[in-house]
Amino acid sequence: MLHGHNLIGFEESAKGKETFQSFSTVQGSFLPDQFHIATNNEIEAAIAKAVAAFGIYSKLSFAERAVFLETIAEEILQLGDDLLERAHLESGLPLARLTGERDRTMNQLKLFASLLREGSWADAVIDTAMPDRQPLPRADLRRILQPLGPVTVFAASNFPFAFSTAGGDTASALASGCPVIVKAHSAHAGTNELMATAIKRAAEKTGMPDGVFSSLNGEGATLGQRLAVDPSIKAIGFTGSYRAGMALYETVTQKRKAPIPLYAEMSSINPVVLLPETLALKTAAIANTLAGSITLGVGQFCTNPGLILVIKSKATEAFIELMTASLSAVVAGTMLNDSICKAYYTDRNKLINNQQVQIIFKGTELANEYKGTPALFSVTAKEFIANPALQNEVFGPSSLVVICDDKMQLETALTQLHGQLTGTVFGSNEELLRYTTVVQLLQEKTGRVIFNSAPTGVEVCHAMVHGGPFPATTDSRTTSVGTEAIRRFVRPVCYQDCPEALLPLYLQNKNHAGIMRKINGNYSRDSI
Amino acid sequence: MLHGHNLIGFEESAKGKETFQSFSTVQGSFLPDQFHIATNNEIEAAIAKAVAAFGIYSKLSFAERAVFLETIAEEILQLGDDLLERAHLESGLPLARLTGERDRTMNQLKLFASLLREGSWADAVIDTAMPDRQPLPRADLRRILQPLGPVTVFAASNFPFAFSTAGGDTASALASGCPVIVKAHSAHAGTNELMATAIKRAAEKTGMPDGVFSSLNGEGATLGQRLAVDPSIKAIGFTGSYRAGMALYETVTQKRKAPIPLYAEMSSINPVVLLPETLALKTAAIANTLAGSITLGVGQFCTNPGLILVIKSKATEAFIELMTASLSAVVAGTMLNDSICKAYYTDRNKLINNQQVQIIFKGTELANEYKGTPALFSVTAKEFIANPALQNEVFGPSSLVVICDDKMQLETALTQLHGQLTGTVFGSNEELLRYTTVVQLLQEKTGRVIFNSAPTGVEVCHAMVHGGPFPATTDSRTTSVGTEAIRRFVRPVCYQDCPEALLPLYLQNKNHAGIMRKINGNYSRDSI
Repeated sequence: MLHGHNLIGFEESAKGKETFQSFSTVQGSFLPDQFHIATNNEIEAAIAKAVAAFGIYSKLSFAERAVFLETIAEEILQLGDDLLERAHLESGLPLARLTGERDRTMNQLKLFASLLREGSWADAVIDTAMPDRQPLPRADLRRILQPLGPVTVFAASNFPFAFSTAGGDTASALASGCPVIVKAHSAHAGTNELMATAIKRAAEKTGMPDGVFSSLNGEGATLGQRLAVDPSIKAIGFTGSYRAGMALYETVTQKRKAPIPLYAEMSSINPVVLLPETLALKTAAIANTLAGSITLGVGQFCTNPGLILVIKSKATEAFIELMTASLSAVVAGTMLNDSICKAYYTDRNKLINNQQVQIIFKGTELANEYKGTPALFSVTAKEFIANPALQNEVFGPSSLVVICDDKMQLETALTQLHGQLTGTVFGSNEELLRYTTVVQLLQEKTGRVIFNSAPTGVEVCHAMVHGGPFPATTDSRTTSVGTEAIRRFVRPVCYQDCPEALLPLYLQNKNHAGIMRKINGNYSRDSI
Repeated sequence: MLHGHNLIGFEESAKGKETFQSFSTVQGSFLPDQFHIATNNEIEAAIAKAVAAFGIYSKLSFAERAVFLETIAEEILQLGDDLLERAHLESGLPLARLTGERDRTMNQLKLFASLLREGSWADAVIDTAMPDRQPLPRADLRRILQPLGPVTVFAASNFPFAFSTAGGDTASALASGCPVIVKAHSAHAGTNELMATAIKRAAEKTGMPDGVFSSLNGEGATLGQRLAVDPSIKAIGFTGSYRAGMALYETVTQKRKAPIPLYAEMSSINPVVLLPETLALKTAAIANTLAGSITLGVGQFCTNPGLILVIKSKATEAFIELMTASLSAVVAGTMLNDSICKAYYTDRNKLINNQQVQIIFKGTELANEYKGTPALFSVTAKEFIANPALQNEVFGPSSLVVICDDKMQLETALTQLHGQLTGTVFGSNEELLRYTTVVQLLQEKTGRVIFNSAPTGVEVCHAMVHGGPFPATTDSRTTSVGTEAIRRFVRPVCYQDCPEALLPLYLQNKNHAGIMRKINGNYSRDSI
């Protein structure tokens, strides 16, 4: 049923002789379908089509783009169980999780559609002319956000739907008015093909220009690099490992003449601070929550809690015992792919072999079955502070407990932390008010501060920030989840004394869509 | 009267033995005052103070920061004629221009103060909890923009006030909640000292933390590089040459571990398109406007019109004759400094010696008097398209007329343009509607499209965009002029289920300052 071709705009293309197959960790074998690696000509054709499409697509009304996004969601639903089953085979993720992720992906597209229909996101700002001002008159100045141009999206392995072909990067880039070229993730090339076909169908049904979307197969070191250096590519969305993200950063900053925004979400160990009184009062509940969060999805979430900071006490000992009991009861899950599973045990073994690190619990290594068993380690805050390598991400169901002597040492440990997607603190309101420095430090190091719940689970909404200081991302000024993700792919353009007929619709005197605009410094939905 | 010291927070410091003097192009001699180059210890002390100040300054209320900015404006006014006279000697700029620029600089500080008092700029977004939502409850999520940390500002030579010590970069960074370390421009070190002292006095008077502002003397290759690589510096504002800007870009991207935003405004030739019918109707008025714009401030504006695109006609010939007459009547002005004057004639001579370029007019070379005489060149569109080097900026009162055969060739020439701060078109409403592709191409290449007036003159307001695609800047997503400049120094932070007492003021249920917030997707000034 799968054709294994690249999608160059509306055209299926398989000019290359080189092919590959997806490996299923569920079946422990390669799946039969052959996927054609894009040739250089095919890559260039996709870029040329994206450039041509940009001229048309960027000028469509927000409502037209909204219909496109909603139709993609419909087409994804039409893929039915074929999509879920293929993704299960290619990712090892259970069907229930995949069903939820598919719904989230569809809702994400619909949320961006509603953002477009509302229209205020484009930040229309108008300063009207003051012809009589002294000493100089003021011109009429109007600005609005405009799309950057063709965007490359690198699909992620750990969310075959929500951070891949039709995921958040693609949805926000398409919403902003930018054509998208997806570099498919080779671990789930079949899932990618189904999703890409859904986007293609939606584009055809809604009259979008050929080239508004392309999907290419290939490796990061070849296809990825080629897309990253092309002068016509104006922004990049990436979710993946620190190593791959930094390789991309080097390429973008050193091998292309014109700088472009690179949004690479890479590495985060998501520190969780347990304040002592609250931990003593709710030891079992907190242990239960965290053990669940560490092992959810076999620990393969960007916001997995890889670091737990506590102050030495009886409660801490009880907490560690309860965690051990919970983790040892977890049935090992199948990991996303062979290389992620191997990397998990390699990185876990670095902790196991570290003389300063205590092994609290480790499940049997099941790399041959592609399964990840949980592990829990501990280290003194003194050692943690002295050894920055202990902050390296272990991608999988493993966590490191940092045992601090006192509040001051806890604060020192937090001061040493690298940038993170999330920082969590468990504490009663009253206790939190005695630990405001802890909260402040978490805020300085992260994109999201969470109170009294697990860091896993990222709501797709207006207020979400899924981003944070380096090395969590290469650009802390943005988010890859939630409606604000659209701002990654736009830049402001100002029109000075522009005739009404040539102004973008949302800057014209008549406020056609009734959007919120800033007029001479005041917010208003009025016409001028 | 000048002490020649560095300003490390509130402390004057002159630990280095190495000194330099400002050279006055007005007097043709060095000014007597000796300025001490910052030592490595002094640089480190300024950074340490900025880090310490950030912890306090970033938590002040918007109103407190507003008072600080307004007090800086007052202290600048208090500097009186001493400031204007020193700046005149150090920049060669006339007193009338400097008086206007000082007022603009003060107004800029006051505009950011009013933005802070209004408060909505911080983009408060609230999605309230939905505990009963199926299949999963939604947490309470609130996000707001928070300052990045200590910022380095590189002062510019061509605006000793408005783009220097207390200029737009400093004003917007201080407004955002970030401490600032200024690398003084060595051409106007005395002006810098006066301005820095005004900022210091304002900081002391308003109770700001020591280290909220520092000013250091030194060269780009040493002081500038040292500041650019320091891990505690979290963003950089720069205005200067393409070469210096790209050297800084290389340092920031290759010599520091953690990427930071670099806002380098560098090189723009600000194309002006003259549509044929309008040019024929208003030949004299357009020639007068452009000749004035080319020579304003001896051509030393970022938005100087260095490129004029026309379609071959009788009117074009008349236009060139009128331009020649206007330019030849201009009295040569003193340039900012020796190296800018030398570079002007060097770059101008490249055009003079280019076989494909016609010399329409060139004033006598007056490099020994530090004066810049106007020049006008022309080239066929065919040659212009074939030779990208003709797009190199000639910083000074020179412009190149590109003569196109027809509309199609004009469009091709515009397609080849590099990124620009501004793009201008002269055309009647009726004629513009027949040239919508021209307008579209100008929009794609620039940060600001101007209709029927000169590109020089940048209004400080809400809708301004002073930025644009590379090489105009290294980051087209922002502006360095206008209130939106504040967004360069912030990042979003999300608070999940945060107790009311720990939330930032502007995210609390009660909307204390009555700011505009986005609550569950709707804009509102209400409390929750």
